[in-house]
Amino acid sequence: MEQDEKFMQEALREARAAAAAGEIPIGAVVVWKDRVIGRGHNQTERLKDTTAHAEMIAVTAATESMGGKYLSDCTLYVTVEPCPMCAGALAWAQIGRIVYGAPDQRRGYSLFTPSLLHPRTTVTGGILQEECTALMLEFFKDKR
Amino acid sequence: MEQDEKFMQEALREARAAAAAGEIPIGAVVVWKDRVIGRGHNQTERLKDTTAHAEMIAVTAATESMGGKYLSDCTLYVTVEPCPMCAGALAWAQIGRIVYGAPDQRRGYSLFTPSLLHPRTTVTGGILQEECTALMLEFFKDKR
Repeated sequence: MEQDEKFMQEALREARAAAAAGEIPIGAVVVWKDRVIGRGHNQTERLKDTTAHAEMIAVTAATESMGGKYLSDCTLYVTVEPCPMCAGALAWAQIGRIVYGAPDQRRGYSLFTPSLLHPRTTVTGGILQEECTALMLEFFKDKR
Repeated sequence: MEQDEKFMQEALREARAAAAAGEIPIGAVVVWKDRVIGRGHNQTERLKDTTAHAEMIAVTAATESMGGKYLSDCTLYVTVEPCPMCAGALAWAQIGRIVYGAPDQRRGYSLFTPSLLHPRTTVTGGILQEECTALMLEFFKDKR
């Protein structure tokens, strides 16, 4: 749990970098053996690419850094519950574990059946949920 | 229909390029006003990236070539039914229409509920289905 909060702080750091750049404040890191091997934050505006989500960037970076294909021994920390696209990417990457902060009741992967994740992936939600949610609320309060 | 077959031939050309490179033979093109504005084929092996599907590459290329964010006036042609990750990406891109060749009864997006696509996206399946399926069967016959 303490370890989970520590790495969620890293994901929050990425989310704050997104906010500072005017992007939706979601951040992610991929951890392998207690080391961050991939990081990313939402860059849909800057890259003008609707698929440039934090998780996609972090997973591609981690896969590259592993020099191989699968992330079965890795954990993804992300500030907001992944969307179906990202869940599908995490399934192809065979991520071992997902830890997220805030649930996404509009577009979270868990709204869909059958499960979009790889059958061996485990999930923990609600880590530093208040901080993760607060970043999102603040961002959209300014925008809408 | 004739138009659909013409552009599915373009997607098949991409799929054959994948096969020639030892990749799973799936190809895709994005069409806007009768012009191909993005193309891609599976490159998961070459890029060592499990998310490098034909549709992801074609959609990112098309979005870039549109200089904007949404593909509402575009059609994606893909030789095999998109997976959930790609369907999610197509939803974020707000693609106008999807035309696919062969269904994917193991990992096709249509196996999931609620629909993974954007509510305004229309879909046509079964265009040049035999050729699209044949490429896949041939590839996996050699591999397995």
